[in-house]
Amino acid sequence: MNGLVFFSSRTFAGLLGRWTGTSVRSLHSIPGMTVAQIDEEVAKLLELKAHLGGDEGKHQFVLKTPKGTRDYNPKQMAIREKVFHTIVSCFKRHGAETIDTPVFELKETLTGKYGEDSKLIYDLKDQGGELLSLRYDLTVPFARYLAMNKITNIKRYHIAKVYRRDNPAMTRGRYREFYQCDFDIAGQYDPMIPDAECLRIVHEILSELDLGDFRIKVNDRRILDGMFAVCGVPDDKFRTICSTVDKLDKLPWEDVKNEMVNEKGLSEEAANQIGEYVSMHGGKDLAECLLQDAKMSQSKQACAGLSDMKQLFSYLELFQVTDKVEFNLSLARGLDYYTGVIYEAVLTQAGTAPAVTPMETQNGEEGVSVGSVAGGGRYDGLVGMFDPKGRKVPCVGVSIGIERIFSIMEQKAEVSTEKVRTTEVQILVASAQKNLVEERLKLTSELWGAGIKAEVMYKKNPKLLSQLQYCEDAGIPLVAILGEQELKDGVVKLRTVATREEVDVSRADLTEEIRKRTSDL
Amino acid sequence: MNGLVFFSSRTFAGLLGRWTGTSVRSLHSIPGMTVAQIDEEVAKLLELKAHLGGDEGKHQFVLKTPKGTRDYNPKQMAIREKVFHTIVSCFKRHGAETIDTPVFELKETLTGKYGEDSKLIYDLKDQGGELLSLRYDLTVPFARYLAMNKITNIKRYHIAKVYRRDNPAMTRGRYREFYQCDFDIAGQYDPMIPDAECLRIVHEILSELDLGDFRIKVNDRRILDGMFAVCGVPDDKFRTICSTVDKLDKLPWEDVKNEMVNEKGLSEEAANQIGEYVSMHGGKDLAECLLQDAKMSQSKQACAGLSDMKQLFSYLELFQVTDKVEFNLSLARGLDYYTGVIYEAVLTQAGTAPAVTPMETQNGEEGVSVGSVAGGGRYDGLVGMFDPKGRKVPCVGVSIGIERIFSIMEQKAEVSTEKVRTTEVQILVASAQKNLVEERLKLTSELWGAGIKAEVMYKKNPKLLSQLQYCEDAGIPLVAILGEQELKDGVVKLRTVATREEVDVSRADLTEEIRKRTSDL
Repeated sequence: MNGLVFFSSRTFAGLLGRWTGTSVRSLHSIPGMTVAQIDEEVAKLLELKAHLGGDEGKHQFVLKTPKGTRDYNPKQMAIREKVFHTIVSCFKRHGAETIDTPVFELKETLTGKYGEDSKLIYDLKDQGGELLSLRYDLTVPFARYLAMNKITNIKRYHIAKVYRRDNPAMTRGRYREFYQCDFDIAGQYDPMIPDAECLRIVHEILSELDLGDFRIKVNDRRILDGMFAVCGVPDDKFRTICSTVDKLDKLPWEDVKNEMVNEKGLSEEAANQIGEYVSMHGGKDLAECLLQDAKMSQSKQACAGLSDMKQLFSYLELFQVTDKVEFNLSLARGLDYYTGVIYEAVLTQAGTAPAVTPMETQNGEEGVSVGSVAGGGRYDGLVGMFDPKGRKVPCVGVSIGIERIFSIMEQKAEVSTEKVRTTEVQILVASAQKNLVEERLKLTSELWGAGIKAEVMYKKNPKLLSQLQYCEDAGIPLVAILGEQELKDGVVKLRTVATREEVDVSRADLTEEIRKRTSDL
Repeated sequence: MNGLVFFSSRTFAGLLGRWTGTSVRSLHSIPGMTVAQIDEEVAKLLELKAHLGGDEGKHQFVLKTPKGTRDYNPKQMAIREKVFHTIVSCFKRHGAETIDTPVFELKETLTGKYGEDSKLIYDLKDQGGELLSLRYDLTVPFARYLAMNKITNIKRYHIAKVYRRDNPAMTRGRYREFYQCDFDIAGQYDPMIPDAECLRIVHEILSELDLGDFRIKVNDRRILDGMFAVCGVPDDKFRTICSTVDKLDKLPWEDVKNEMVNEKGLSEEAANQIGEYVSMHGGKDLAECLLQDAKMSQSKQACAGLSDMKQLFSYLELFQVTDKVEFNLSLARGLDYYTGVIYEAVLTQAGTAPAVTPMETQNGEEGVSVGSVAGGGRYDGLVGMFDPKGRKVPCVGVSIGIERIFSIMEQKAEVSTEKVRTTEVQILVASAQKNLVEERLKLTSELWGAGIKAEVMYKKNPKLLSQLQYCEDAGIPLVAILGEQELKDGVVKLRTVATREEVDVSRADLTEEIRKRTSDL
């Protein structure tokens, strides 16, 4: 692990208190402690002892970021800002507003929204007052915001970090603190128009980020549920069978069928029928075909989903995105709150996607298929869970899997010969002679006043060579060199770093000249 | 409180457990509880009962954000983004890179950095694993980042939220979750050049934000300490007397003197001598004058500070900011880690600053004087606290009090007649007739493809009036109206919302025409 530094302070006993959340003395004096709790304390102490390597006189403090988190250095930030710019520009092109919510919510707000995954929520310590948890996604805070402010329609994006006590796999872009990048449309509208716009947005963003070819899989919860019903899946097994189907992008059908039949107790016949359906993928034609399907057409739910799917594809044709969109009956997605259309975008060029093992992706929502970089769907019931009268606000949205995209962009930058600049500085104000610090500062100040991005070295008498070297390192394209002669003549020597070409420019024309020469940056 | 909604679920007993952090049963079974703790529990229960209004059969769940936090609605976000843009542009003009750090740090990282204020740190619950705390400022994580990555020089800005379990006063812009906006220069350089640049940055930002007139007070920790020494303050009272001096911007001298003498046991004579010094303010001349001062010149520390102050003012003259900067011996600032120059900017036009009572400001660091909107200083020892060998990295920085600035800008926007737009949409694609949804979507898609920010209503057959009304509400300047005739002629009717003027534009020219008409937006 890079950057790990150990150093010592405090006593062993003091550390015990901090490490286990209780002091050794009070540990002995708590009568209500269960055997399990004592076992837990002992395990912690032994882990601690291992860390200390038997040196009981002092402890070692680890200089690091918390598990599963990372700092962003300037180069990573430059890439991050470029990606955000592309995404936000797209959201704004589609007329979205933006909101922000606190990083923590009342614990109660998050309760009952994430099913089994609730165990991954970070809770804050009870320090007196409200019980708080770090947000787990941006969708539940969004629903809480809508209900609390009685907002019935809005188109908004929200880019912020969320927190999950998951098993980190940081080399593969999987963190405990990570960005989500959500776009949602809330409101009662005619079917499939906002849904189609979400897909158009995914198409625009993935095209503009230039991540290689991609495919957007689309399905509908109602079609899935209808399919399960007509295949003879008992009502109470819909969800668990659904999560097995969700594994189809990582496992072969035989394994999935095996899990359905042998682990989940589904009949072989039902599983086979499901198998036939989930192998189907196509476009509008498939939706039309299934509407005529003798079995599928028995389910009202499926028919509603299928005729909406037809409608969706008509709009997608108008939006010119059908080249990448595929109606795929095997797409399930994990989250409970989806009620209609669901979708997921995957990169299809192996070269562009970093190696990710199954179940270890992080697309901004739940773990999904290898290469997934966006996902979302319709959730018409979530806002109602927060409304005292259960009033529903239909919503559809998409989450861009920004951390995977960062990883890909970082890898691209690493192999590229083009240098990533971390500043936008246009010019360094330098001098070839001694005792010109005042003149350098004065000129720099003039340039700042004119809106030029300028730097000056913080030394009284820096060497010209080290000033030029700084420009090379930082990618600064121009240098303004001051000397006694230039000051006398009212000019500066303007040097182009790349070509080493130098030309005298009058002080009056300098700003204009810098602008002209850096207008393409 | 706006947006408060109550609704019921769970049982009263269940809530008690959540609310007080312990169940009623276990409350009776904890033998170690003190009288004070019991009183606290009783108070919490009574508060709870008041909330419930006596209905003990069910509890009410409050739909709100955690205490001391808020959501930002789209209008607030638009203002926030405008302010950030101004500030970040300035930081970039000065060649700063940016970094980011996790929202939480190892608890140990924050320990011993904030003195008494440590009690305001948010801890995370121990859910197994590391003990974590939410960051309290951006300076300590920055120092940790430098030490961990062995970085000895960098110029960086960092804009992010920090967390303090303080008493919120939200109407006055004081929150438990709030933004900090920091610019710091780390590195071993010639004295006062980076320090002067920090002051120039404050000057640029406050001028550009147009918050009314302001003043930047400057002092030096070494001058303060030297002054205390020559006035006869015992060494062990430097810090406590310093924090009393810090109150001079809120209290008259008599009260401050009274605290020194009667509460802190300083001799009347020493207090009187301090009183003489702290009433002094001026510029370079004052520094020169004090260097000749019979008493002050006895302190080596003070002399070092004073001669650096002289140097600082020479640079500030070159940077053309001395009109707003004042050397003021009463400026103390609370944080322990400062080692040299300290400064603080205050707004001097009462009208522009929202009412803030003493000790309730939040300038991005510690509570400071009324109207304070920026502050900072030199801290040469902090990075060394993280380095195993104590290697120092000299740092100087400034923190912009962004939350107060948001408050001022929001108040300005409220009284202004100019509408704050929350989107940048250039055009709405509308139709006057029925059955044109496909044509509207197709044209909208074309405009998106050409990079135009365009919206279309999500209804199959919206009324023209409601489409025009939407433009009025959202501030959209243009409407493209489609009808049978326009489609036949290959044109759209381009309407300017403000003037109601309409003109036919060919589809081929539409993009160019929209760009031309919205280029000033």
